[in-house]
Amino acid sequence: MSEGEQLRASFPELARKQADQPDDSLIVDFGPERPLHLDSGVDFAPLRIAYTTAGTLNAARSNAVLVCHALTGDQHVASIHPVTGRAGWWDTLVGPGKPIDTERFFVICPNVIGSCMGSSGPASTNPATGRPYGLDFPVVTIADMVRAQAMLLDHLGIESLFAVLGGSMGGMLVLQWAASYPERVFSALCIASAARHTAQNIAFNEVGRQAIMADPDWRGGRYIEAGTRPAKGLSVARMAAHITYLSEDALQRKFGRNLQDRAARTFTFDADFQIESYLRYQGLSFVERFDANSYLYVTRAMDYFDLAAEYGGSLATAFKGTHTRFCVASFTSDWLFPTSASRQIMHALNAAGARVSFVEIETDKGHDAFLLDIPELFEMVRGFVGAAARERGVA
Amino acid sequence: MSEGEQLRASFPELARKQADQPDDSLIVDFGPERPLHLDSGVDFAPLRIAYTTAGTLNAARSNAVLVCHALTGDQHVASIHPVTGRAGWWDTLVGPGKPIDTERFFVICPNVIGSCMGSSGPASTNPATGRPYGLDFPVVTIADMVRAQAMLLDHLGIESLFAVLGGSMGGMLVLQWAASYPERVFSALCIASAARHTAQNIAFNEVGRQAIMADPDWRGGRYIEAGTRPAKGLSVARMAAHITYLSEDALQRKFGRNLQDRAARTFTFDADFQIESYLRYQGLSFVERFDANSYLYVTRAMDYFDLAAEYGGSLATAFKGTHTRFCVASFTSDWLFPTSASRQIMHALNAAGARVSFVEIETDKGHDAFLLDIPELFEMVRGFVGAAARERGVA
Repeated sequence: MSEGEQLRASFPELARKQADQPDDSLIVDFGPERPLHLDSGVDFAPLRIAYTTAGTLNAARSNAVLVCHALTGDQHVASIHPVTGRAGWWDTLVGPGKPIDTERFFVICPNVIGSCMGSSGPASTNPATGRPYGLDFPVVTIADMVRAQAMLLDHLGIESLFAVLGGSMGGMLVLQWAASYPERVFSALCIASAARHTAQNIAFNEVGRQAIMADPDWRGGRYIEAGTRPAKGLSVARMAAHITYLSEDALQRKFGRNLQDRAARTFTFDADFQIESYLRYQGLSFVERFDANSYLYVTRAMDYFDLAAEYGGSLATAFKGTHTRFCVASFTSDWLFPTSASRQIMHALNAAGARVSFVEIETDKGHDAFLLDIPELFEMVRGFVGAAARERGVA
Repeated sequence: MSEGEQLRASFPELARKQADQPDDSLIVDFGPERPLHLDSGVDFAPLRIAYTTAGTLNAARSNAVLVCHALTGDQHVASIHPVTGRAGWWDTLVGPGKPIDTERFFVICPNVIGSCMGSSGPASTNPATGRPYGLDFPVVTIADMVRAQAMLLDHLGIESLFAVLGGSMGGMLVLQWAASYPERVFSALCIASAARHTAQNIAFNEVGRQAIMADPDWRGGRYIEAGTRPAKGLSVARMAAHITYLSEDALQRKFGRNLQDRAARTFTFDADFQIESYLRYQGLSFVERFDANSYLYVTRAMDYFDLAAEYGGSLATAFKGTHTRFCVASFTSDWLFPTSASRQIMHALNAAGARVSFVEIETDKGHDAFLLDIPELFEMVRGFVGAAARERGVA
């Protein structure tokens, strides 16, 4: 058995089918006549956005919900992932009868630009050269991602969103949406996120980027043409990041110092401890579904995010005069996007006179909690969305 | 300018002279007739230990202080480092008139086995092949390191240590000394350490090891013969580890989201943020002074450390009947070796009926605090050592 096969055998709950699944993504292309204006000053075209939808847009066009994905997420929020064959990353929250009820709401989830699941990104073909962009793809920001999503909504004829929600980087997009397009956002849910990236967050992202760029198979970003993949570098990047998604308590409870099948230490550099084997598996399985250059671009967008800086240094100014209803949530054991970051958002919203609910959810599951089956999270979303729907008269 | 030169220019306080300095290390060699018995079952020989001393051993041989270094530390505790030209890593604490007063005490600081500053390690020549050991060097444990140090003390004719002290991994050696050789340790100071490595600690070490082994210049550990060095992998390992040495508050205070000299974001993958540049410098300067294989071995020794496991699962049993005076200290913002880990040690010592002082020092400097100028730490060491010296009648 290869190490990959061995690791998969050790983690049956992670080792879902790796088959080509039907892809329910929809595609919209914007030509050179509709360039996307980027914060870098570049007018980018042509632009492609891949997205999924679920549910039906009502006649009043008042029931649209935009879901924003996190760093390595994608548009498959509630549908089978075409590469991994696994369930949608938020299908616990989004679906018929679920807190974001697709029998009631029209859910749209676009792949962010810079990513690698169909929307324009560094792996896309550069029409000027006929080759993949690689590092010639422009560096994009969270605001650029949101501007591209607004073009998608224009294309779909959706003037106003009933709700926009997301966790982690998705929460950054939520805040940017509420600041950039306040009149288009009736309600906003920002989960386990922050209005800006901290030095520690930037530091972890930088380690990941350096790990990728240190891999000789990265080839200055031109690995697709070279027929190589910086799999080892990307795997190390994912391993380092993965530690930050879990709390120390969760790691201790789940793995502690438990050894693998072997009864004793091997006195080698094999994965003696379960936590080592788990991390190696996380790294290996990630490279099967994610593009290394996209990892550079999307982490960079997160690092650049500082919403207050766009508004003269005042986060409250970003939300001044807003009529959006906000819900902000954090998890007690999240040390990557701690409660203090959510409190900063809440204080700014209060200072701006906005309507805001804030919940800190008790859990030991760390940052990852936003993707997990956390009943308090689901109840909170259901309650907040239900009240907002009554206010807007969405049946 | 190369990136290294640029980075050095940006951090003048870090960019000390990189010249060949005189090396004050002493060397002792143990031949095949005195093998070191390792936990792995291997009898290792020949064995070399490099060490430094400061001060003078008194006639009663009662004033010897053993200093144990941390993961990437070495024997140059209070003398100029021969490679970097920088001051000893603990010369704030150890020296004439300092808390560990070399006018009063005879200080011994050995390089741990497995490391790379003169003691036997993976870069040493394997007498069986005439080539560097590489991964043929046996995996060693904290107990093995301590056993080798005991051989050094036997060689020096020192039956009993007045004190043994260390921080981080050094603190692990302190605990192992007190457990393995209680009759040889009059007093013990364990700073910012733990009686076992947690899953999170193991995880960070594993990321570092994988980064090194992913570097093609590592060559299965045979890079010395190949004339290469896995500099990029080792640099990434150091960057990831370095984040864990600092608190989030310290990073925020020191760097925040400050940009480099440039006034604005470059929209590239250059080091826009000061924290990025700082981490890159930490990585680059580390590879100039440390061996990649040694990084594998010493992190492995830390991961394997679980003192209670050697005593039937009970940490108190490890210290049963001890007459050693203990001092345990932690730092409030240390998340790598948090106060809870020091409390576990203190509780076990209490349960064993040992004499123990425990201090939690308030600082925002994170794990790195044990190497920094922290007045409360120095006062604590001075007070504890002074009282123990009076008890032992050391002038």
